[in-house]
Amino acid sequence: MRHDGSPYPERVSRLRAGISENDALLVLHEKNIRYLTGFTGSDGALLVGRDWLTLLVDGRYATQARGEAVGTEIFEFHSRVDGIAAVAGQRGAGAIGFEAPSLTVADHLALQEKLPGVVFYPLADGLQSLRAVKNEAEIALIREAARIAGEALAAIRGMIRPGVREAEIALELEYRMRRGGAERAAFETIVAAGANAALPHARPGRRAISAGDCVIVDYGAVWGGYHSDETCTHIVGPASERQREVYRLVREAHDRAIGAIRAGVTCGAIDGIARTFIEEAGLGAHFSHGTGHGVGLDVHEAPRLAAGREEILQAGMVVTVEPGVYLPGDWGIRIEDTVLVGEGGCEILTPTSKELTVL
Amino acid sequence: MRHDGSPYPERVSRLRAGISENDALLVLHEKNIRYLTGFTGSDGALLVGRDWLTLLVDGRYATQARGEAVGTEIFEFHSRVDGIAAVAGQRGAGAIGFEAPSLTVADHLALQEKLPGVVFYPLADGLQSLRAVKNEAEIALIREAARIAGEALAAIRGMIRPGVREAEIALELEYRMRRGGAERAAFETIVAAGANAALPHARPGRRAISAGDCVIVDYGAVWGGYHSDETCTHIVGPASERQREVYRLVREAHDRAIGAIRAGVTCGAIDGIARTFIEEAGLGAHFSHGTGHGVGLDVHEAPRLAAGREEILQAGMVVTVEPGVYLPGDWGIRIEDTVLVGEGGCEILTPTSKELTVL
Repeated sequence: MRHDGSPYPERVSRLRAGISENDALLVLHEKNIRYLTGFTGSDGALLVGRDWLTLLVDGRYATQARGEAVGTEIFEFHSRVDGIAAVAGQRGAGAIGFEAPSLTVADHLALQEKLPGVVFYPLADGLQSLRAVKNEAEIALIREAARIAGEALAAIRGMIRPGVREAEIALELEYRMRRGGAERAAFETIVAAGANAALPHARPGRRAISAGDCVIVDYGAVWGGYHSDETCTHIVGPASERQREVYRLVREAHDRAIGAIRAGVTCGAIDGIARTFIEEAGLGAHFSHGTGHGVGLDVHEAPRLAAGREEILQAGMVVTVEPGVYLPGDWGIRIEDTVLVGEGGCEILTPTSKELTVL
Repeated sequence: MRHDGSPYPERVSRLRAGISENDALLVLHEKNIRYLTGFTGSDGALLVGRDWLTLLVDGRYATQARGEAVGTEIFEFHSRVDGIAAVAGQRGAGAIGFEAPSLTVADHLALQEKLPGVVFYPLADGLQSLRAVKNEAEIALIREAARIAGEALAAIRGMIRPGVREAEIALELEYRMRRGGAERAAFETIVAAGANAALPHARPGRRAISAGDCVIVDYGAVWGGYHSDETCTHIVGPASERQREVYRLVREAHDRAIGAIRAGVTCGAIDGIARTFIEEAGLGAHFSHGTGHGVGLDVHEAPRLAAGREEILQAGMVVTVEPGVYLPGDWGIRIEDTVLVGEGGCEILTPTSKELTVL
């Protein structure tokens, strides 16, 4: 028996649904392994049979795996491929389903060579939806990550003023998040000022803030392995009328999308609400990315809120809503919250007000 | 024509050696793409024909790619696989060699489906040795990364005392490296005290340092994309006689291996020098990893200094030498420098003295 309250047996049985007696599933994605066993190391493999479960780790992680993946059989390997072949052979697996986006061609070739009688087949959705609906404990971790991050932003907001460099602000924000308890930043913090704010994936650099800049801060923290993700766009005064107008537009697109989120709606419909609103203002060409994505053990995970996506939102999913408008060479505005999907609406987990802030 | 002094044409021609007229090489490893073109984005693909070269990026990176990969044709894609298929089709590629450790089975299947007439074959060593020998500019970047890191360690060394937590030290060290100009830490800084020092891959945690602890600090900085890697083991006094004795042993293994490094020696021979010395002291079972690895755009890259490795050291390679002894449940000692291989010896690039430091 597992420890009382362990979430892992239920997760493994969801994964097992539909696999037949001689099949095994090979799980390689680090976060999926963590989700299914509790093991937090970065180099392992998990084999899942209908009535057996083996976590494979190398010698560096054996002690850690025994402590974290309580009740799971641990197999220690020197070479990962050799280990997988040994366990699959010993269990008599006739077919092995794998996550095609996580298995490299090199490992695939080596496994086929070592297990010539075994049929390898890619799993339909690569387990991507496995982690999409969060339980209470997961939601509490994301909420805490968002709180730590928001407090850090509030503490360093005074740095967003003319003459301060993007990279200095990013560094202080990450430092404050970690001093506040974060395991690490959820991703390389984006602080993008002026024309850099027109690049959705700008890296903070030596550019100093000037009066009149939009300053996009896209940041998050990790707590207990779970991520937060939030974007605040500040305007360092004086703000132009056009900046105020586009800010109001993006804010309204963001608010409308969030207002529509509830269980039963498709992801594509939410994207459409934000996108149509921006398109009708004539700025559709400047909203060059999807409206949002799931957040959890990965900062980007299922589902994706983008045009045409048919996945249906379910209560317990945690997703971002982050419309943006980017005017190349000039400036950009993005506004992002992370929200928890409920039956009749959603709850915003990220703590910072999205009112226009002119600093 | 390229800019004067650009290193990229020479690198691309080394890669092209031996490919035939209808072949193309598909490069997916982010650092290989950077090495061959200068593009620093994290999501791209490079197709290399005998007399053409196309960098494929998505819309987020198009402006950046044009600025960084000067003289390289840029192709903008919506889906990476579709982009690769379009360029390969347009160039009439009959066979495409790829890096098997960097291509996922999912992308491989999609490419085969979109290009049914094309033969896909894995490249023999997956381009792993392409970046092993560094030029002067690369060496200067590694040297500067090591200098920034060493200054930061010197500045925070006073924190290594009873009562201070591992994670606090790691955070301050990373913060100082970035304040000193580092783009980021080379990897998640290891600060491992007491029994944690017996785990080669410990993560800094809430454990506070106690008197008598060994404290392993394994850290590095990134400068201009290039990494440094250094490990210092400190003893927080009082040091036991056994700790001093094992420190001297590991230090001697480290010094002997470094003393043997020069062009023409095999990687396995260097590993053997450190390993035999530790084995002869009866501690061979406690030296559970290889002696070193190459360092450059990746913190771990070719060549590997491990048992049986036949690769021959060449002048201009930059490698670590990092023997360790780990006594499970008790303590551990690792001593690591990054060195530049020369014709008649090597030069140590990491600046910190490896004399026993009792704090």
